[in-house]
Amino acid sequence: MIIGIDPGVSGAIAFIGDNDAAAVRDAPTYQPGKRRRIAAGEFARIVRAHLADEKLRRSGETVTAFIEAAWPRPSDGAVFAFTSGHGHGVYVGVLAAMDIPTTAVAPQKWTATLGVQKPKGAEKRDKGLSLELARKLFPELALLLRREKDNGRAEALLIAHFARLSVRGELFVPRPPAPTRPEPQPECEF
Amino acid sequence: MIIGIDPGVSGAIAFIGDNDAAAVRDAPTYQPGKRRRIAAGEFARIVRAHLADEKLRRSGETVTAFIEAAWPRPSDGAVFAFTSGHGHGVYVGVLAAMDIPTTAVAPQKWTATLGVQKPKGAEKRDKGLSLELARKLFPELALLLRREKDNGRAEALLIAHFARLSVRGELFVPRPPAPTRPEPQPECEF
Repeated sequence: MIIGIDPGVSGAIAFIGDNDAAAVRDAPTYQPGKRRRIAAGEFARIVRAHLADEKLRRSGETVTAFIEAAWPRPSDGAVFAFTSGHGHGVYVGVLAAMDIPTTAVAPQKWTATLGVQKPKGAEKRDKGLSLELARKLFPELALLLRREKDNGRAEALLIAHFARLSVRGELFVPRPPAPTRPEPQPECEF
Repeated sequence: MIIGIDPGVSGAIAFIGDNDAAAVRDAPTYQPGKRRRIAAGEFARIVRAHLADEKLRRSGETVTAFIEAAWPRPSDGAVFAFTSGHGHGVYVGVLAAMDIPTTAVAPQKWTATLGVQKPKGAEKRDKGLSLELARKLFPELALLLRREKDNGRAEALLIAHFARLSVRGELFVPRPPAPTRPEPQPECEF
């Protein structure tokens, strides 16, 4: 089973079973002050519930998580940066305590791989593209992906989809022709 | 058993058993970029090891955690704010996934209660006071509290000590005289 996480407070958590059954949940949040934060206990409960869901995961199936990488930009405000770091920390902390290996993937990486990246010169990504692709890949979840604001759900599903392709070795990684003397091959890196 | 956490990257984690046996560990960190971050997997392992340590905790003893509250100040730099939020999130996330209830306590609150607060008008707290009090309260840990830079360990121990006093109801909380008609009493808040 794969867990895909769009880590913002308007993000979401997606689950894809080895049988390709999928589910998605909005990020669990609470509001201690002006800004919402990710709710750790609720996230732990969501993960446990989906791990135990037989439609998604047969007992013994391994679990791995991919989360969109986040880092501070010096131009960010302190409050936004704190909230962003906090959310990332909560996700990483809960998954670590559950012994679920977690990979951080840069937004540029998964969006370019799936063809939903920011066009050259554009200031922002067209989030409609993510929604469109998610609806196509997960038609059984179409009801959850109708609105523009369902974009966080779409991105979590696409991150999980990217992870599924990576884990199954279905991403094309060009390799140089075999050298005459065997050399160590670099591993695929995210 | 009580867990006390000074959440900075130079902070520490303290454990006090119901039998008053104590232990302290430096914050586990790694350095992915310019700044150190709290290492989630390593923190989970530290907690598990101490939960299983029979000198600290008899089986079945309940566990509760107190962590120094952190919030962003608008004047903070984005990188510091992100790191600080991340560390807090990791601690809260790991503890939530382990079903350990966690209370955030403002630095002003525990330092004032224990008498190691910032003097009026002073710009910073005298961290030597924390060290001195921790050495007095935990003489068996004196070897770990010798240096000025052992201050994070001292603060984690004092936060755990504050938690111990709170949990045992040994902190004096003034209450108004009983009213003629019974009214709901406000609970002690941290």
